[in-house]
Amino acid sequence: MILMKKIEEYVRSIPNFPEEGIIFRDVTSVLQDKEGLHLAIDLMQETLKDVAFDIILGPESRGFIFGVPIAYNLNKPFIPVRKKGKLPCETVEMEYELEYGTAIVEIHKDSIQPGQKVVIIDDLIATGGTIEAITKLVKQLGGEVVKIVFLMELEGLKGRDRLKEFDVSSVIKYEGK
Amino acid sequence: MILMKKIEEYVRSIPNFPEEGIIFRDVTSVLQDKEGLHLAIDLMQETLKDVAFDIILGPESRGFIFGVPIAYNLNKPFIPVRKKGKLPCETVEMEYELEYGTAIVEIHKDSIQPGQKVVIIDDLIATGGTIEAITKLVKQLGGEVVKIVFLMELEGLKGRDRLKEFDVSSVIKYEGK
Repeated sequence: MILMKKIEEYVRSIPNFPEEGIIFRDVTSVLQDKEGLHLAIDLMQETLKDVAFDIILGPESRGFIFGVPIAYNLNKPFIPVRKKGKLPCETVEMEYELEYGTAIVEIHKDSIQPGQKVVIIDDLIATGGTIEAITKLVKQLGGEVVKIVFLMELEGLKGRDRLKEFDVSSVIKYEGK
Repeated sequence: MILMKKIEEYVRSIPNFPEEGIIFRDVTSVLQDKEGLHLAIDLMQETLKDVAFDIILGPESRGFIFGVPIAYNLNKPFIPVRKKGKLPCETVEMEYELEYGTAIVEIHKDSIQPGQKVVIIDDLIATGGTIEAITKLVKQLGGEVVKIVFLMELEGLKGRDRLKEFDVSSVIKYEGK
């Protein structure tokens, strides 16, 4: 019998980072263990096993970490969502609110064709603002978000409330913020 | 007989981005084609087939794109190299010169053990400044860089001159800048 560590056990939690009162869930401790890396990707991928879709989107930069290997394994294209100004061709952009101020995400205009079924992948859902903005970009280009997958979810921040109309899965759930 | 597109054909080249006189080699056009994505990762991975190593390092953010799937496929850990201030635990950092000003890259101090053999993966080598800084971080932690792999190389910028002591491979070579 092989006793495997649970995925939760690979995540290092750092109290009071980046500021007082926040527990930071560190994904680097998952990645720097080859079994943790495999398990995280496999468990996220498993949530897609009954989902028919065309492309995977992942936001810069930690969405790249899980989005690309899953795209590779499932033989799908990967569309990077980037911060404003980094993509060289014609883009569509969406502004969203941060705790202080706003930010803008962009994708190439030709990266989604109307009618395409889209999966969004990221490492963690906190307030859900970035992902909500990305769902709007997908809609604007005529795509359909059929699934959103996270490795970790901070349930206390209620990010899911912003993504109510979508099918959302997370592998690890933390009650707090 | 199957006629496959060559990897070069997936790269979109954009003249005068981000500034006049530069030809931008766009990796997103490779990724947004499922065959391009597979081919890029497979060809980079092939350069490692005779290399014995322990861990893969990739710099934020485009190094994540190729580093993680190769780590997954070859069953190795992945260490993200990040811009200053993003990693939550104790780090080592290295400053390096940009065209205007300087930048700092960091890795977690516990991510490399003395004696470990390290592969560095990134999408593109231009002047090689970032990767040179990363090789110094590896050395500082007692690791040994045994291979550096890029998808694309801008030979005109002579980045290899900075990495002379290392085994460097690139899949696509462009003569210019």
